[in-house]
This record gives sequence, C-alpha cells and structure tokens, in this order.
Amino acid sequence: MAMNVTQKLIQSHLVSGRMTPGEEIGLRIDQTLTQDATGTMVMLELEAMGLDRARTEASAQYVDHNLIQVDSKNPDDHLFLQSAARKFGLYYSRPGNGVSHPVHMQRLAKPGKTLLGSDSHTCANGCMGMLAMGAGGIDVAMAIAGEPFYVKMPHVWGVRLTGELNDWVSAKDVILELLRRYDVKGGVGKIIEYYGPGVDTLSAMDRHVIANMGAELGATATVFPSDREIKRFLKQQGRKEDWIELQADREANYDLHEEIDLSKVEPLIAKPSSPGNVVPVSEVAGTPIYQSYIGSSANPGYHDFAVAAEIVKDRKVAEGISFDINPTSRQLLTDLVKESHIASLLEAGARLHQAGCNGCIGMGQAPATGRNSLRTTPRNFPGRSGTKEDSVFLCGPETAAASALTGVITDPRTLDMAYPKIKEPDQATIDTNLLEKPLPPEEARKIELYKGPNIASIPEMDELPDRLELPVLLKMGDNISTDEILAGGARVLPYRSNLPEISKFTFEIIDNTYYKRAQQSTLQGGHAVLGGYNYGQGSSREHAALAPRYLGLRVALVKDFARIHWQNLINFGILPLTFKNAEDYDKLVQGDILELSNVRTAIRQGRDLFIHVKGKDEQIPVQHTLSERQIDIILAGGLINWVKARKKRAS
Amino acid sequence: MAMNVTQKLIQSHLVSGRMTPGEEIGLRIDQTLTQDATGTMVMLELEAMGLDRARTEASAQYVDHNLIQVDSKNPDDHLFLQSAARKFGLYYSRPGNGVSHPVHMQRLAKPGKTLLGSDSHTCANGCMGMLAMGAGGIDVAMAIAGEPFYVKMPHVWGVRLTGELNDWVSAKDVILELLRRYDVKGGVGKIIEYYGPGVDTLSAMDRHVIANMGAELGATATVFPSDREIKRFLKQQGRKEDWIELQADREANYDLHEEIDLSKVEPLIAKPSSPGNVVPVSEVAGTPIYQSYIGSSANPGYHDFAVAAEIVKDRKVAEGISFDINPTSRQLLTDLVKESHIASLLEAGARLHQAGCNGCIGMGQAPATGRNSLRTTPRNFPGRSGTKEDSVFLCGPETAAASALTGVITDPRTLDMAYPKIKEPDQATIDTNLLEKPLPPEEARKIELYKGPNIASIPEMDELPDRLELPVLLKMGDNISTDEILAGGARVLPYRSNLPEISKFTFEIIDNTYYKRAQQSTLQGGHAVLGGYNYGQGSSREHAALAPRYLGLRVALVKDFARIHWQNLINFGILPLTFKNAEDYDKLVQGDILELSNVRTAIRQGRDLFIHVKGKDEQIPVQHTLSERQIDIILAGGLINWVKARKKRAS
Repeated sequence: MAMNVTQKLIQSHLVSGRMTPGEEIGLRIDQTLTQDATGTMVMLELEAMGLDRARTEASAQYVDHNLIQVDSKNPDDHLFLQSAARKFGLYYSRPGNGVSHPVHMQRLAKPGKTLLGSDSHTCANGCMGMLAMGAGGIDVAMAIAGEPFYVKMPHVWGVRLTGELNDWVSAKDVILELLRRYDVKGGVGKIIEYYGPGVDTLSAMDRHVIANMGAELGATATVFPSDREIKRFLKQQGRKEDWIELQADREANYDLHEEIDLSKVEPLIAKPSSPGNVVPVSEVAGTPIYQSYIGSSANPGYHDFAVAAEIVKDRKVAEGISFDINPTSRQLLTDLVKESHIASLLEAGARLHQAGCNGCIGMGQAPATGRNSLRTTPRNFPGRSGTKEDSVFLCGPETAAASALTGVITDPRTLDMAYPKIKEPDQATIDTNLLEKPLPPEEARKIELYKGPNIASIPEMDELPDRLELPVLLKMGDNISTDEILAGGARVLPYRSNLPEISKFTFEIIDNTYYKRAQQSTLQGGHAVLGGYNYGQGSSREHAALAPRYLGLRVALVKDFARIHWQNLINFGILPLTFKNAEDYDKLVQGDILELSNVRTAIRQGRDLFIHVKGKDEQIPVQHTLSERQIDIILAGGLINWVKARKKRAS
Repeated sequence: MAMNVTQKLIQSHLVSGRMTPGEEIGLRIDQTLTQDATGTMVMLELEAMGLDRARTEASAQYVDHNLIQVDSKNPDDHLFLQSAARKFGLYYSRPGNGVSHPVHMQRLAKPGKTLLGSDSHTCANGCMGMLAMGAGGIDVAMAIAGEPFYVKMPHVWGVRLTGELNDWVSAKDVILELLRRYDVKGGVGKIIEYYGPGVDTLSAMDRHVIANMGAELGATATVFPSDREIKRFLKQQGRKEDWIELQADREANYDLHEEIDLSKVEPLIAKPSSPGNVVPVSEVAGTPIYQSYIGSSANPGYHDFAVAAEIVKDRKVAEGISFDINPTSRQLLTDLVKESHIASLLEAGARLHQAGCNGCIGMGQAPATGRNSLRTTPRNFPGRSGTKEDSVFLCGPETAAASALTGVITDPRTLDMAYPKIKEPDQATIDTNLLEKPLPPEEARKIELYKGPNIASIPEMDELPDRLELPVLLKMGDNISTDEILAGGARVLPYRSNLPEISKFTFEIIDNTYYKRAQQSTLQGGHAVLGGYNYGQGSSREHAALAPRYLGLRVALVKDFARIHWQNLINFGILPLTFKNAEDYDKLVQGDILELSNVRTAIRQGRDLFIHVKGKDEQIPVQHTLSERQIDIILAGGLINWVKARKKRAS
C-alpha cells in the first residue's frame, strides 16, 4: 500500500491499535524533550516511578523558560533538573543554551524517529521528517520509562504546497494563512503533512516555523518529508550521518486535502488575542506599536534574525519603540554575531536578550498597559505577555522589522528597499558546550537528586467516587487556553515544582475567587467547571490539570476539548465530558449542582451518561470518548495511582 | 592659596557656607542623574513642586534597573519617566541603553562640573574631574529645580598613587585595596582625591571603577583630575570640545593622607557579605563557584569585558558554571561585538544579557541556594543577589574570568597564559539612538505626564509632634544597609512608584513582623528603631526612609549614620539621633518605649537631648547634628511640607 510520510512514521512505531482515524494507537517513542517549566514535575514523576535509566534513544532536558532567576527558586530548579538528567541518563541543556525546539533540531533531531515532548510546540521538529508531538509531562515521563504513547489515530491532512514565496513573504505567513483559513481548532484530531513542489523551496528552518505553529491549529503533529534540504541542514550542523530520506510514496493519499499556492501568500498578521485572528498586514497597517519583538520557536532560524538585521541595517528604529531581539540558541547567536547581524540590530536600536523563551512565555518584556506589541511569537492569548489586558499581534520577522523602523504596523513590501538576500554559513558554529551529554550508567547510578527548598512532592490523590455531587464553580466560553487555566509568566512559572503554591493561581485570570471557592469545595467532594469549544487549547502544561485537580476539580464538561489538555485531565483523574447536544451548555449556570450516579459503572458501560441538575428537573445527556485504558486511569484517580497499582500487582 | 581639585570644584560652585570640614555648605549643581528605580519618585516630587523646566545644564533620566518587565508595571513606569523627561526638559535614556554611570560618562559628563544623582554610585563620574555625588531622590529633585545641594563640607583625603599595576591586577583591585585597609566606613565624611604619578597609568574607565566604589567606603565623593587621558576619552567619545584641564595646584594639600604603590597591589576579593571583607584572591583560591558574573558600574569598561574575553578565548568555562556577561552600555556592547570579543565570550559558554544593572541590583541572575557567586559588581550585602542566604564574592574581571574557566576561585596569575594586551578602538561607536534629547521648551510645555496604574501619589505627612512616646520596634547591629531596610530586587523594585505597596517590604529581611507592628504603631503616634555604626550604608534609595516614615517611624537612634541615608531621613521628617555614649546602645532593648518631651524646642536649642525610657529609671543622652535648615525640614515633617510652606509664604 502506498503510504504518506505520516503513515510510514506511525507504522514503523506502532505497538498497539490500528491506523484507523479515531482509534487509540500506542506508539514507540524514540526521543523525548522536556523543558524546565514542565520538566521538574516530569523528573519528580520519574522518581516516583522508580526509574533507573531512560529507555529512549535520546532524551533531553532543556532549561529555557525560567531564566530570569529573581531569587533562588529558578537556579535551584536548574540544579534539580541537572541532577535528574545525570541520574536518568538524559542530555541536559543548560540555562542560556537556547529554546528546546531549535536546539533539539540542531543537535538531536533525526528523520524517521518519533519525539514526544512536554511542550506543546514539540511538533516543531516535525520539520525534520519526524513524528514530533507535544504531550503532558506524565505522558513524557512514561515514554522516558519506555512505555508507549497512546493517542487517537488522527486524520492525515495533506497540504500540498505549490509555487514559491514572493519577496517579503516568509514561512510564518504560510502558517498564518492556514490559521486564517481554519482558525485555532482547524487542526484538531489531525496530523498535517506538507507535500508537493513548494516544499522544496522551503528551508529546514522555514519548515520549523510552519510545523511549530501547527500547535496553534490544534493539530496532533505536523510532518514534513526528509529530503535533500534536511540533508543539507544536518550537514551544516555537522551531523550528516543522521540523515535518512523519508518521502511519501508516489501514490500516497491523505484523509483530507488542502492546497496553498506559496506565490499567492501575502504578509499576514494575527490580531489580538488569538493566533487564529488573521488578516493581511495591509488591513491593520498604520496601527501604532510600542514593541517589536523578534524571536521564539515560531521564528527561530538564522534567516529570521538575519533578514531583520538587513532590513534595519544603517537605519534607526522609530522613537519610543522597544525593539526586542531574543536569540533562540547560543549557537545561532554566535553565528549572528560573527556575521555582523547582531551589530546591525544593535546599531539600529535593538535590546538584545539572552537566548531563551523569554517574553514568549511571559518571562519578561511585557508591554505597557494599553500599548500594542508586535511579535514573531506563536501565541497571543490574553495575558500571556505578562500584561493583564495586553494587545499582542503576531507576524513574521519582515513585518516586525519594518514596523520597528516606522513605529506603526507596516506591510514590509511598502519599505523602499530590495528584499535582503541572506546567505547562511555553510557550516554552523557547533556549540555543545552547554549541552551536557548523558552520563554513562555506572556514573549515573551514583547521582543523587538535588532538591532545593522549592521542590515539593506530588500529594496522594483519591479514586473517582461512584457518586458525584459537584457545584459548577466556573462557566467559561470557547477557546479557553491553558494560559487562562493556569498562567505562565514570571509570577507563576517559578512554582512549577511546587503544587500547593502554584495552585493558588488557578483560573485567576478568569475569576480570582476560584481558588478560595475551589479549596472549600474539596471539603464537600469537589466541583465541576463548564467550557465551550476547544477547551484547554495552547500550552501543554499538565499543571493546568494537576492544579485544579488538587483543588477538587472532578469533572470538566465542555463542548469539546483540545487534545493535550484532554489527555492531561485523564492523567490526573479528572473526568472529561462533552455535551451530547451543544445547546445544553446554555441550560447550565454557575452555581448549578451536577449529580452523577454510578459513574464508575456508567463510564465503563458506554459512551453516554446523564447528568442531573440538582433542584432543577433537568437531565443533561453527556458523553465521553475514553479508551478502556483511560477509563482504568480515571477510575484509579489518575496515572500515578494507576502505575502504582500496576507495580503492586506485578510484585 | 594652592588648592586641590576637590577644593577647586567646591569653590567654583559654593553658594553658601565655608569650606570648613563639618560645616554645611550649599553647592550649585550643574548636572543631575536619576535612574528609574529612584526616578519615578523624583518625577512625582517635581510634579508636586510644580516645576516647569529643569534649571540645570544637563539632567538625564536613565532606565537601567527595572528592565525585566514581568508585567505592565515596569513598562508603565518607563512611559511615565519618558513623559516626565519630555515635560521637564531632561535627557531620557531608554531601557536597554545601559547603566546610568557609564552612559553618563560616555555622553554627558564634563570636567569641572558638579553632578548630583539619585543613585549612590553617582560618584563614579568623579573619574572625569567632576564633583559627582549620590543623594536621595528629593535632593536631586531640588537640584533639578535649581536649588543648591546642602552637604557637610567633607575632609579631603588625598590618596597618592605611585608605580604601575602589574599584569593580572586591575583598577578593581586598587579600590578593594582601599576597602581592605579602611573597610566600609573608611570614607565617611570624606572626599577621596587621587593624585600622583600613578594616576597617569590609569585609563578614564579604570578611574571610573575606583571612583564608583568610593560609595562602598562611604565617601561623599571621589575626585580624579582631568588630564590628557580624560581628553583622549572625550575624543574617543566624539566630545573633545567638552574637555578642560583640571589639576591640583602644585602646592595643594589634603586634610588626610594615604598612599598606594600600584605595583604592590595584588588580585583581591571581597568575601561575603560586605565589600569591606577583603582578602587576597590567593587566600580563598580553590573555593568552588556556581556563577561568574562580569558587568555593572563597578567594572563597566571596554577593557573589563575585552580582557575577560581574551582570557576565555578558545577555551571553555568549567562544567556547571553560569558565566553571566552583563554589558553596561549598548554603545560598548556594539564595539565589543564588532571587535569579536562577544563571540569569544559566547563560544566559551557565556550567557549574554541585555545592557543594564541586572543582577547587580537583584534584577535576575540570583545564584542557587548555598552556592558561591563571584561577581565584578560593587556590593555583596546579604540578600542583594535575590537569594536569601546568598554567598557573593566581589572581584575584578581577570579573577572572574579565570575562575569561570576553572570552576573554583582562581588567582588569575596562576593561569598558564600571558596577560592579554587590549587595544581599545580609537573611536567609539557613538550611539545616541536610545538617548532622547531634552525637548525644546515650547514642545515640552505641551507634554502631559503619563501615569499608569502603578503610579501612586505621595500621601500627606504630619509635622513632628512636640512630645514623642515611641516603642522600639527593632534593635539592629552595625552596618545595616539600605538593602536590608528596604530590599531591591525583582520582587520589590517594581513598586518604587507605589508607596503603600512597597512599604510592605520594609525591614523584611531583618524582621518580617516589622510591617504589621509598624502599621499598628501609626495608630499610637509612631515608633523608633535602634542601630549601630554606619547605619543606612549602601544604595541611596530614599524609599528606605520614605517607607518606614509612611509606617510611623519618627526617630532613628544609632551609633552613627551613613551620609545619604541620614539626609534621606531628614528629608522625610524622621529625626536622626546618635548616642552620646555609644555604650548606652547596650542599655536599650526592643520593646522599650522612648519618651522625648519638648522635642521641637529642644532640637533648636542645642545638639544634646535626653531620652527617657518609660518604666525604667533611665535617661539616655543623645545628640543631633542638624543644620538650622534641616531642623526646619524635620519640624515641618519633611522636605515636601517644607517646600509647600515656603511656596505658601512666597505667594
């Protein structure tokens, strides 16, 4: 049978299930990626599981989120992660080495492999002919321990690329075009596979940009072929031996179809406050900006910075503009310094920051109240910038650089200059200085975990009771992101390894009375929350499930779920239910008390359940889509309990 | 009469008093400098005074402390400061442009002028043949408004430099040598003037290093001559027209004498947790470090970074070391990039941060719990790094770079290499892009102050009551720094323009029950605190007086005061008293109630007062050293009330 690249990747890693869309499949995971904000919890989970050494081919622990170090919490976490990486046989990428996704691509990604990462943009490495997926931390912990990763077999969505991008249009505009057409849930339940002649015109890093923001479409993964361009990239990185070719068969087919003529794409921009809110740049041209921000895993490549540098070279940024340059890896920064691009940016007025996620995850660089921020980052969910009522636009580096010069949102095609032609160095400056290799097993065995005062163990959690009586503490709308469930940013991220502390911030952006009300609910058997469509989109942070669970959340009832958050809810024993009839959402209000009887039996018996609303003569039909394995996990009260029980049975 | 440089500077600016040590003199101020952490309050004070336009020759508002922007507070403050600079006719140095002291030196400092700054390291610009002094914010506000600056005529301490520094020894070691000899209060009541043949061997930036840390000696100012080296520096900065020669007369004399043979100075280091805790590097060599940190106004020059770059070039920093590079100005960073020094640092493993104060003021880069941090910064007071129980060593860039390579504190002379010879560019890259010039008056008049939600006005304060009955809420030891009275760092600094919020952090490091107890004291007429020698050393932040005043502090009774804090106490209406007999300090305990009767009359009648301890048969003789002007200010309840009353009388 002729296969596309996605099918080849899945078939070669399939350990259970059939490749029928919607059916749960188990996949062997070759590589994993964890970052510091999610990784501390993953390492605590590995410890709880009693893991001796990673079973994967390569697992890397990156430190890229919490780099500010305003007190000892961040650096203590770094030391904990370093000790864990040494103990479990992982790579350890030290603070300042760069953002996980480009560093992984540069140093570890291999065509034909699977990669699971506790970061929603893990999909970026799909650019390398890999099956790269974001997941909750505990899923990644399981993968590190050699367990398969379970996911519903997605539909494979073939996006045929034709033509070639015009000057002043770049890869970011391609993915924004797809977001313009399909919005933030257009990719849910799908793997996007790009093919066709247009692929040849895109560099490996261009493909990274496109694959990265597959996350914003809600896609399970994005897949590109491994072709001569990937060979060139690996050679440039001193790793040509890691290349294999991986192409779709000539007669391969796709479940769904789309086509983008690259020559028709124009500079695009996502308006506040959703990456799906895309319009042509020309439509908002002239809007004043406060900040122009270049960097993040959504535009991490040499070209992204070099083209911005050439645009602003020998010019000055407009008065009052904060022109923030956030290099994505030290290696790349070094090359940009050597090729004089950093000097051009500085002389134009740039603020140069250390390599890392920085403002993309709200770690600094927040815009002023009421001012517009223009960013090449992937997300502009409300408050993610750190400023409560922010106004963040997303665009490519050409638009960001052009707008920095004028002080207003500017279609770069209107600049009076030729599109800069960038020549990348044939050979990158290979820098593995801050990427520590896994220790040999005999040395690893001697390592003790270093736990600073901010590392708190995960408390025990109870099983799912058979009868639930849950007040609705929040009723939310569509597209609630994990940023709104549990914020990132400098106030919150330092507590990622401290559940009692971090839970205080749960749903704070939506309703700052939730924490207190939820705490009280734990004394009366917990509570429920209601949501609309695409509930839990965005970042993969499992804390967005773990923290509400800690505060008594037992049921999330919504119109539909974003994939990773749905998985995280299950992993921490929260029952994810959807309305059978979406309009029933309107019948419920905050304060209603939902009653479910015989839940433990009912979810086993079928997909349909009924919720009775206490004191109202109302029966709401709802449903679940849990696999048998997932039902076991929910009943046990979450994956940790489930793993413990399995170990007990085995011993 | 033959005069030294200090006398020439004072005489040419004297508007009241005589040049007799200890006597209050009034000085005309030519230039001022404010930074963001102190500047927001200064600008609010200017507004309260109803100032139309700065009366100085040049006043500059820098943004260098609060650059992290974790939420809208920092950037809102920046916009407020920018609007104030435009309204009042000040220069405005934008975030990312660099640390006030080196930028001021590069762009605005002029030999023969006086400079007053609301930053304790303002004295750094004494390297330029200026009389440069740190002061509380409101003193700087007065200077901007054209008022003289009042200070007690200091003793002039002539430090004769002979010989020449050996390889591997640099300016930082010279000032550490003086701290080794005289400790942190060795300069109190003095202006340090360097002279002699050794001066010729020091570059302008070397002198900056030495002048900067005069603050750590407690000196009122540090003065260097303006000679051919200053001419060269100004030429390099494109400002040769700003040079004048300013040398001591041949027969000039000094009140006090010291001599340093530069050829005898060896690499020195200040151990935790005081800049005066100085020993030879060799004495602590081999101590493991976690962090090596290069930057800050204490080592801001091209040579400081370039020599570190040459030391680590083609080598790698030791495993696990955080090698933090903090450029001090964008202009300098640009030159370091162009001359390949930044590439050398990056390739060795450096983390490159944006130009600013950063970790020096606890804005990020805190070390891990229990780990040693080696820094070229000026201060290592407890907790200033951001980590509560920190362990910070201070040294020069040679020692910091050598230790980064080895992972342990290392005398750089033991490295197996020749001392790098650095060639500075003849012409610096002049970068005024982020330094906005004062608006012309007609434009300035149209500017409205922009006040974000974090800007709170200063509340009204009452006069000094005639009878005081004050419980002692804290009894503290010697050398209490303003960092301990009111911390800097990322938690606290963002509230510098919001008194009710920032006051919550007052004395928190010493006793975190103070805030609540003090708040209660305001209902019963306030409270007192006790201290030992050198009370209020360190940073010039006036919030360290304003916040306790807001919480009811009326009397600070100590063995002696650091100059700037003493002034700040007066400015905010807190009565600063010293023990007549230092041993009486031992008779008092926390909880004692101090009674002062007829205070208003008593402080006018003489220097001596008696404090009665309630319920004990104890009379403690104390004294004050207030001038008539200062008594008026104290009685009025502080400078703001005093200015208001004066305006009222005038109208």
